[in-house]
Amino acid sequence: MAIWHSIEKPTLLLNSDIARRNIRRMNEKAKAQKIRFRPHFKTHQSAEIGEWFREEGIQTITVSSLDMAEYFARYGWQDITIAFPVNIRQMDTLQNLAKRIHLGLLIESPEVAQLLGQCLKSMVDIWIKIDCGYGRTGISWNQPSEVAALITEIRRIPQLNLRGILTHAGHTYIASSQEIVRRYREAIERMNRLRNELGEFGSLEVSVGDTPGCTLAGDLGEVDEIRPGNFIFYDAMQLHFGVCHPEDIAVALACPVVARHPNRNEVAIHGGAIHLSKDYFKDGEQAIYGLVALPEGDNWSKPLPNAFVRGISQEHGMVHLSSANMQSVQVGDLLCIIPVHSCLTVHAMRSYLTLDGKIISTLNKD
Amino acid sequence: MAIWHSIEKPTLLLNSDIARRNIRRMNEKAKAQKIRFRPHFKTHQSAEIGEWFREEGIQTITVSSLDMAEYFARYGWQDITIAFPVNIRQMDTLQNLAKRIHLGLLIESPEVAQLLGQCLKSMVDIWIKIDCGYGRTGISWNQPSEVAALITEIRRIPQLNLRGILTHAGHTYIASSQEIVRRYREAIERMNRLRNELGEFGSLEVSVGDTPGCTLAGDLGEVDEIRPGNFIFYDAMQLHFGVCHPEDIAVALACPVVARHPNRNEVAIHGGAIHLSKDYFKDGEQAIYGLVALPEGDNWSKPLPNAFVRGISQEHGMVHLSSANMQSVQVGDLLCIIPVHSCLTVHAMRSYLTLDGKIISTLNKD
Repeated sequence: MAIWHSIEKPTLLLNSDIARRNIRRMNEKAKAQKIRFRPHFKTHQSAEIGEWFREEGIQTITVSSLDMAEYFARYGWQDITIAFPVNIRQMDTLQNLAKRIHLGLLIESPEVAQLLGQCLKSMVDIWIKIDCGYGRTGISWNQPSEVAALITEIRRIPQLNLRGILTHAGHTYIASSQEIVRRYREAIERMNRLRNELGEFGSLEVSVGDTPGCTLAGDLGEVDEIRPGNFIFYDAMQLHFGVCHPEDIAVALACPVVARHPNRNEVAIHGGAIHLSKDYFKDGEQAIYGLVALPEGDNWSKPLPNAFVRGISQEHGMVHLSSANMQSVQVGDLLCIIPVHSCLTVHAMRSYLTLDGKIISTLNKD
Repeated sequence: MAIWHSIEKPTLLLNSDIARRNIRRMNEKAKAQKIRFRPHFKTHQSAEIGEWFREEGIQTITVSSLDMAEYFARYGWQDITIAFPVNIRQMDTLQNLAKRIHLGLLIESPEVAQLLGQCLKSMVDIWIKIDCGYGRTGISWNQPSEVAALITEIRRIPQLNLRGILTHAGHTYIASSQEIVRRYREAIERMNRLRNELGEFGSLEVSVGDTPGCTLAGDLGEVDEIRPGNFIFYDAMQLHFGVCHPEDIAVALACPVVARHPNRNEVAIHGGAIHLSKDYFKDGEQAIYGLVALPEGDNWSKPLPNAFVRGISQEHGMVHLSSANMQSVQVGDLLCIIPVHSCLTVHAMRSYLTLDGKIISTLNKD
């Protein structure tokens, strides 16, 4: 096939059919349950891929930084939530963007609410960031009085339109598939308990979002909005935790083999931390930095049995292969590495090559 | 100070005085021992910083990819070793570069030597990659007959000028400071034992290179060339293993504080895996993703006691602080994070801000 021949160095492959199917599937699931779908665009980071969402009728999106919000606003997205605590050092840029689009912001402290009140000239939507157990950011779900005090403050500030409470159930990433569903439900329950306790403030929306929970939970529960991102591509980590099947994974990093070590069933590839990121998961004692597939027709194969990236440095990957694969793989061949964490690999690579040979750019490589 | 005020988002700070002192120190050490200094430019990746080496009289450099070699060749570097096994899929680009500069290549198999013979029209220097125990790439140091067979092959090919044997003693990265020196000496011993066993082939050079060994070993030993890279900036990992002092570290990532969690002595910063990389070291059971300093006059402070980045996701860092620092650090303040692995942080950030407010670009951000 033409694309295999043209690849000289680490190249991020994108199967656009799979990505589009993943988008449709999650969109239909949300629609059927009458839940607003606000996909997180930090995974693909691409205006062109954004259009695939637009084709499905999606108008509302999530991003992880103000820079990313500005990028997608340039491409016509008018309703964007920045799912990251407001960085008050960027107030001028924020104000500028708030003038032009319908902007949603996350806050978790009265000081930031007050500062927004002093600086903003346009209305913004406000979501209060709740920590449902992940322990990263947000007010703990079991501190309703703290949330109530913040709401009281927000209500005093005319530019702030309080929409509701928002959480990222990120702790679903470190669990088995049953555990993922159980924890997703627990997060929904906690958010609704908090919403009820805040009943005096009128109707508040609940926004949740993570790929494992939104994929595995048949019933998305009593929420107004979901914000998963990774589901467009999935990755080796999601496969490992039973969130997706191999045929749901839409990206792979094509890497040239540069050395063979048959005595230890290993090859070295050009493809390291600066391409894949250093994310890994543990399979027993073994750290896994990627799974391994082969070019196969105009796609990559299923992951090879007993094959994985066992370690990476800046430019190298050290790949363990089965004895059978070891014999056939030669220096100069390509391996297709299924990344452990597709969001970070996409960010590192900054552009895609589709299986029909088209280059798709991202925020960082326009 | 002007620079603190101007910083709105994660920004890689560079103390150029420290970096220049680190360059001078390593250069003088090599010169005093009559060893060729061929610094690895994968750490700084910047033409402008390259000039600081040139000012010290350095003409020979190491890079980790053909792209990086092309970049530095554009900026007048004429003697470059690509310390990465030849990627035969890039043969045309390689041939093009070999025409223009004095190029050194690494090989470890007769097949690649033969392919170079078929494709190259210009002379290149050849280094045989030796594995001294790191287990990444190269022929094992205790397989002299395999090396001899490869040399015989190389000697048959007129475009290949065999220079010697080369190793990256990368396993020094996972050891204590005494252990680092012991292993550096062991690697030198193994390389020289191999060189002696290959005596029939005439004089072969020995090239070694890693920052921990080259920094800590007073006597660099019987080698012809050293190729450390990280020493220009050092980082939290090198500090942890006793390779450098806090005042030797030349880079820090300035990160805005976006949320405070006094109940657990933590703040959240804008600064995550896409800025720092996901590299970490373990201090006991605790994974450390960065050390923490504060802006102090026109520099950053020493690392704060009992403070570290305890976890990172795509854009966030979760920072543990002492109770005293917790009280004074406010939302909107900057923390200066000492990266765990400066090479990867530089690659992720793609440009620097010097302490006197100058932007320095890299290969990936011209």
